[in-house]
Amino acid sequence: MKITVESIYADVAKIRETSPLVHNITNYVVMNSTANALLVLGASPVMAHAEQEVEEMTGIARALVINIGTLSTSWVAAMFLAALRARDLGVPLVLDPVGVGATSYRTKTCRDLIETVPPAIIRGNASEIMALAGQDARTKGVDSADSSGAALEAAMRLNEKTGSAVCISGEVDYIVDGAGVIRVENGNPMMGKVTGLGCTATALCGAFAAVNSSFPVAAAGAMAIMGIAGEIAAERSEGPGSLQVSFLDALFNLSEDDLKSRIRIGKQS
Amino acid sequence: MKITVESIYADVAKIRETSPLVHNITNYVVMNSTANALLVLGASPVMAHAEQEVEEMTGIARALVINIGTLSTSWVAAMFLAALRARDLGVPLVLDPVGVGATSYRTKTCRDLIETVPPAIIRGNASEIMALAGQDARTKGVDSADSSGAALEAAMRLNEKTGSAVCISGEVDYIVDGAGVIRVENGNPMMGKVTGLGCTATALCGAFAAVNSSFPVAAAGAMAIMGIAGEIAAERSEGPGSLQVSFLDALFNLSEDDLKSRIRIGKQS
Amino acid sequence: MKITVESIYADVAKIRETSPLVHNITNYVVMNSTANALLVLGASPVMAHAEQEVEEMTGIARALVINIGTLSTSWVAAMFLAALRARDLGVPLVLDPVGVGATSYRTKTCRDLIETVPPAIIRGNASEIMALAGQDARTKGVDSADSSGAALEAAMRLNEKTGSAVCISGEVDYIVDGAGVIRVENGNPMMGKVTGLGCTATALCGAFAAVNSSFPVAAAGAMAIMGIAGEIAAERSEGPGSLQVSFLDALFNLSEDDLKSRIRIGKQS
Repeated sequence: MKITVESIYADVAKIRETSPLVHNITNYVVMNSTANALLVLGASPVMAHAEQEVEEMTGIARALVINIGTLSTSWVAAMFLAALRARDLGVPLVLDPVGVGATSYRTKTCRDLIETVPPAIIRGNASEIMALAGQDARTKGVDSADSSGAALEAAMRLNEKTGSAVCISGEVDYIVDGAGVIRVENGNPMMGKVTGLGCTATALCGAFAAVNSSFPVAAAGAMAIMGIAGEIAAERSEGPGSLQVSFLDALFNLSEDDLKSRIRIGKQS
Repeated sequence: MKITVESIYADVAKIRETSPLVHNITNYVVMNSTANALLVLGASPVMAHAEQEVEEMTGIARALVINIGTLSTSWVAAMFLAALRARDLGVPLVLDPVGVGATSYRTKTCRDLIETVPPAIIRGNASEIMALAGQDARTKGVDSADSSGAALEAAMRLNEKTGSAVCISGEVDYIVDGAGVIRVENGNPMMGKVTGLGCTATALCGAFAAVNSSFPVAAAGAMAIMGIAGEIAAERSEGPGSLQVSFLDALFNLSEDDLKSRIRIGKQS
Repeated sequence: MKITVESIYADVAKIRETSPLVHNITNYVVMNSTANALLVLGASPVMAHAEQEVEEMTGIARALVINIGTLSTSWVAAMFLAALRARDLGVPLVLDPVGVGATSYRTKTCRDLIETVPPAIIRGNASEIMALAGQDARTKGVDSADSSGAALEAAMRLNEKTGSAVCISGEVDYIVDGAGVIRVENGNPMMGKVTGLGCTATALCGAFAAVNSSFPVAAAGAMAIMGIAGEIAAERSEGPGSLQVSFLDALFNLSEDDLKSRIRIGKQS
């Protein structure tokens, strides 16, 4: 597992050159913004959720992104169909367990899904990763001081169980797998005021996983360019509205020099 | 019922400090834009519509916003489940009767809902409020000259029947309850050219109702900051596209001085 | 079939004056952006997809736009109900066969629909028009050099079968009907990096078809103002994010002079 500015930019270049089809079964709130993010990065997004067509769509895709932000019975059925097809074909599955822990429906759906088809990458915030790992954030008395420790522990347990690269996003992003922990420190706090940038990060993980089968490295690359595009956008914005617009511009125009001058990535000691 | 710049700004501050969870069952068109508006104001939006989880989600929310813009059978069922749960727990319900009167499905759904669970706040435009009150705008020969009078009459009838604070949005917004009528004159005509700003107003009513149990005051505060953010945005925009972006920036950056210098609110004489 | 700057601008003026109601049954990804485009052009968009209400909604609309981007069983049923109602009432149907050919569900749905209710206008990209006409783009070895020829042939066959004005959008847009082929050369390549601008073009075809019953002329007018607004926006943008915003501003502010100075339209020889 080797990750450098050059290797990340090589993945970006490969996405731009090959335009991998990324099949998204995602929530209504972020469909437009994640499709736009995938498109400006250079990937080909497609959204399809009908049980009648998801297997066929996954069959022509290079990655499958499942996001449980707005579930319903038929969508859950379609998620399982698509995930099983992805497993059979070796298409990497990226999971965003949005709001897991908030309702038992979300928790049960996510746990069933990761048991049925262990994802290549799971990306969530600290409380989602902890809920998914079966750790109740509330009973642990999590606060900002100790959250990263408890979440990292949860991510490690989740990785042991599933083999997934587990990405905890936050002020610092952590990517956990059996080989260690990668830290990505890029980003800007105002990104938290734009709906669905977490979901966008997950979608970009899908684009990177489509061109790089070392999934922790793919996830780290996605988080790094998310954070860097967010930093550039924040410098040009007057608030979350303009940040959302500038983020897409920055991601579209992202250069190797942007990566070189801004990246803050390393192994967790 | 007392409403001043200070009391409105106190509500804004309380939303920013406590980040109340606002559960939205809303239409597909505006999910992203209303989530963003709630988020930049300081609230925590969540969208969830599955019958399997809406009661649980409403159970952890501080307000429930129901918007009927894009209905279907299972969404209507979920709306009733969530509304009944809100009633049982004392979570304020805010209703946006989008397009009521245009189809009998919308009219029947809204009327059944307000009879089953009288909302804390109902917000619509003049024709929606009239349709909901059972007054046919067309047979009344409504035009711009007499619409506010007919709509106010409809709002009063609706308030008598439901006890809801009824908000009619338009060039001037009116908030009607048993104690009288509040006028809010902030806003800019170009706001009507951005899809879903009415739905955003309703969502913000939810955020205010989460921190202020005087619902007419909550609605008036929401309409005032909507209008003020819209005015600021319009001054910085070249059209509805940039207005939508600047609106979010303005709402995020809204200061007590913005409120003081711009607010035009008063009792209807 | 006569098309001039004056006739296109007359249609724009008529849309602005009469605000025709355009009923959209469209995909989740683009609902917000297409509603905004219709609104800034001057039309009145409504999105409604429930089987319980689509016939009633189509009954008060001046055009029906069906877009198959995110299908499901109940939406397909609603599309047929609405289309049949449109046929009975003489409301023009505009079809966007998004992703037809990618899955058999999309292909079957589109083919059944155009057989049941031949659309006034069909708009897609070259590969969609070819798939809809039963021509497999892959087996034809389509590349950029010969795609327009093969797609034009497919469009002509589709027009013969359905009587629809068939619009192929791309670097050059072609509008094909029995009387010939119109070329529209406006636009900017960066428009391809904004999700759903094709869907927006289709929605604008609906607005034009609502005021002009010469459907090839309506489609050509819609494509021309799309392209012109896109050109103006691209000149003011730093990437696809700001292009999407500026596009709405440009469409809102579109003047007859913009049309006169920029239009590149003509008959295919």
